Amino acid sequence: MHILVNSHRMIQEVQHVVKAVSSRTTIPILSGIKLDVSAAGLTLIGSDANISIESFIPTVENEQEIVTIHQTGAIVLPAKYLAEIVKKLPGEEMDIHVQQPFSVTIQSGASIFTLNGFDPEEYPRLPVVQNDAQFSLPQQVFKNVIRQTAFAVSTQETRPVLTGVHLCIVGKKLTCTATDSHRLALRTVEVDLNENDGNVNNVVIPGRSLQELNKILEDVSDDVEIVVTDNQILFKVGNLLFFSRLLEGKYPVTTEMIPAKAQAKTTFELKTKSLLQTLERALLLSREGKNNVVHLKVIDQTQIELTSTSQEIGKVTEQLHVEKLQGEHMHISFNGKNVIDALRVVDSENIYMMFTGTMNAFLVRPSESDHTIHLFSPVRTY
Amino acid sequence: MHILVNSHRMIQEVQHVVKAVSSRTTIPILSGIKLDVSAAGLTLIGSDANISIESFIPTVENEQEIVTIHQTGAIVLPAKYLAEIVKKLPGEEMDIHVQQPFSVTIQSGASIFTLNGFDPEEYPRLPVVQNDAQFSLPQQVFKNVIRQTAFAVSTQETRPVLTGVHLCIVGKKLTCTATDSHRLALRTVEVDLNENDGNVNNVVIPGRSLQELNKILEDVSDDVEIVVTDNQILFKVGNLLFFSRLLEGKYPVTTEMIPAKAQAKTTFELKTKSLLQTLERALLLSREGKNNVVHLKVIDQTQIELTSTSQEIGKVTEQLHVEKLQGEHMHISFNGKNVIDALRVVDSENIYMMFTGTMNAFLVRPSESDHTIHLFSPVRTY
Repeated sequence: MHILVNSHRMIQEVQHVVKAVSSRTTIPILSGIKLDVSAAGLTLIGSDANISIESFIPTVENEQEIVTIHQTGAIVLPAKYLAEIVKKLPGEEMDIHVQQPFSVTIQSGASIFTLNGFDPEEYPRLPVVQNDAQFSLPQQVFKNVIRQTAFAVSTQETRPVLTGVHLCIVGKKLTCTATDSHRLALRTVEVDLNENDGNVNNVVIPGRSLQELNKILEDVSDDVEIVVTDNQILFKVGNLLFFSRLLEGKYPVTTEMIPAKAQAKTTFELKTKSLLQTLERALLLSREGKNNVVHLKVIDQTQIELTSTSQEIGKVTEQLHVEKLQGEHMHISFNGKNVIDALRVVDSENIYMMFTGTMNAFLVRPSESDHTIHLFSPVRTY
Repeated sequence: MHILVNSHRMIQEVQHVVKAVSSRTTIPILSGIKLDVSAAGLTLIGSDANISIESFIPTVENEQEIVTIHQTGAIVLPAKYLAEIVKKLPGEEMDIHVQQPFSVTIQSGASIFTLNGFDPEEYPRLPVVQNDAQFSLPQQVFKNVIRQTAFAVSTQETRPVLTGVHLCIVGKKLTCTATDSHRLALRTVEVDLNENDGNVNNVVIPGRSLQELNKILEDVSDDVEIVVTDNQILFKVGNLLFFSRLLEGKYPVTTEMIPAKAQAKTTFELKTKSLLQTLERALLLSREGKNNVVHLKVIDQTQIELTSTSQEIGKVTEQLHVEKLQGEHMHISFNGKNVIDALRVVDSENIYMMFTGTMNAFLVRPSESDHTIHLFSPVRTY
């Protein structure tokens, strides 16, 4: 294997595939990135067995030569060093040349690196994904879907299926749900799925996979194609393939948890940013005790009061203006940190809050739309 | 104690004094910031027993009322919470009111905090600094002096005096020196010290004190006044007083370590940035083994070669252009990380390097000046 490759593109694609490589892998060869040169170009692969990322750099792109191929072949190079080396090389191109079976020289400008690698034959094959069901979404839309749901997955392995985001398509509507059983985030979006393309139901993608994918997606309208099989999901973005294992197990039915309008006992609207900043202040004191409990009380038709108390440190109280208040003057306690997480991903100036009783979950959504829904369990305080 | 204080100024001064407060203090009251209100204004004090910072906010500044005093008095408030609360308060002013003996309400906009504090009578007194010797320097100059020396202090407590920067004034010249016995950084600067103002000799300031002071100093030509006594040093910057304990013990004589021009066996000049970037690349591989060894070899009159090898990972080689080379074609090994640290604080496009033999310390300084000198011990490689 011997190539001359454009440094800028090489840095970009190494940074993409290295996201799949874990520094704590127990399989030595997975600490590496596979470089595979065919007549068509250079393929880079990184994997941690759960996530695999494959990126292809073609010989010619936009009529510019990006890779000059002197000799085809393959090698696996230690990901950590490769990523740092390519980033710091001085020249605009880098010459990558396999010298002995599993060693390589990388030359750029006056700089020459010799790097020991692994046998490419030992690198695991990527999963084969048959086109069971396939749909696509603009990258910027899918980025938002991830941002607005993946934060709410469980971080505890006691119920592994809750560490993922649940996908379900009914008709032309994709519903993405995440819950750690104390809070729930739900986002719906229109998709184009032909019925004979198969169906998407009880597909649970590990939250970590989506967080890594989100770093690669860009804020552009170009599509990301999504292919779902029994135990794998594949995201195609331009020349990049992102594979993720799916989580096994039955995801809980969450649709019935969402309270209907008819159950509402108290509803009001208020400014997202005001509530967010007030909660951030409230948590300055209660964060320490790690309970994050905030108490909300309706004062009158236009005012609510948020309070947080930490026995040893002190207390904070703040009144907030609300609009369109309907129903009872109730009070409720909740985990302020969970609500803050949700408010940070709400892309709406105003939010609508609906309460169905002091002991029941309450709902937060943008005041103008219901494509995003957040639910929160109350906290009992004695 | 009851005051109304401008939020912007309060945030600024709390951020200054909180730098002296350690989160790991074993003396509970030192986890707090003292607020002391006299008829003239509000004094804030933070301390960790080694460093103390006192800042004064006068009632009126630039003809604007900054502090309105309703009642004088004092309180000590937990530094961590106070610093976060003042930063997040919504209003342009904050009303601070001692309610019970050691509790306070802080009100700003719609936000009301109640915070438990400590008895101000228990807060230790600041050291009394008599004017033994006094001189002053523009803040921007002193910032540079700190930046160019404090990085080189020892981090090991085996020889405590080496964890500080040594100050010495002879005639009108202040010499600041730091060494961890493997490298040395020296910076000289002109000062105005009257002979009857006392003398400055064997003054050793803890490196950490200088790093904290540097965060407070600004890039302005306003002076910082420096007062030295037996065991304390005081820096006065506007309304701010920064006290630091001095280190005890005899600082080693370093002047004789610096090789004279006559001892030079090889000298050359090269671009600071080129050498820095080459060393950063060289350390990508050797950093792991933590030895950071880089080998330098003179190739011919215009080229040197830098090499670094890590048995397991690989090797890096790079040639660099040098100018005005005189003397032998030598080679030497050294700790590349130490040289990188020094090159990062050199404010000169070109540097001069002087070698006096493979087993002797070598010298690096700006090619146009000798007010900054860096020395490095070689590393033996077998």
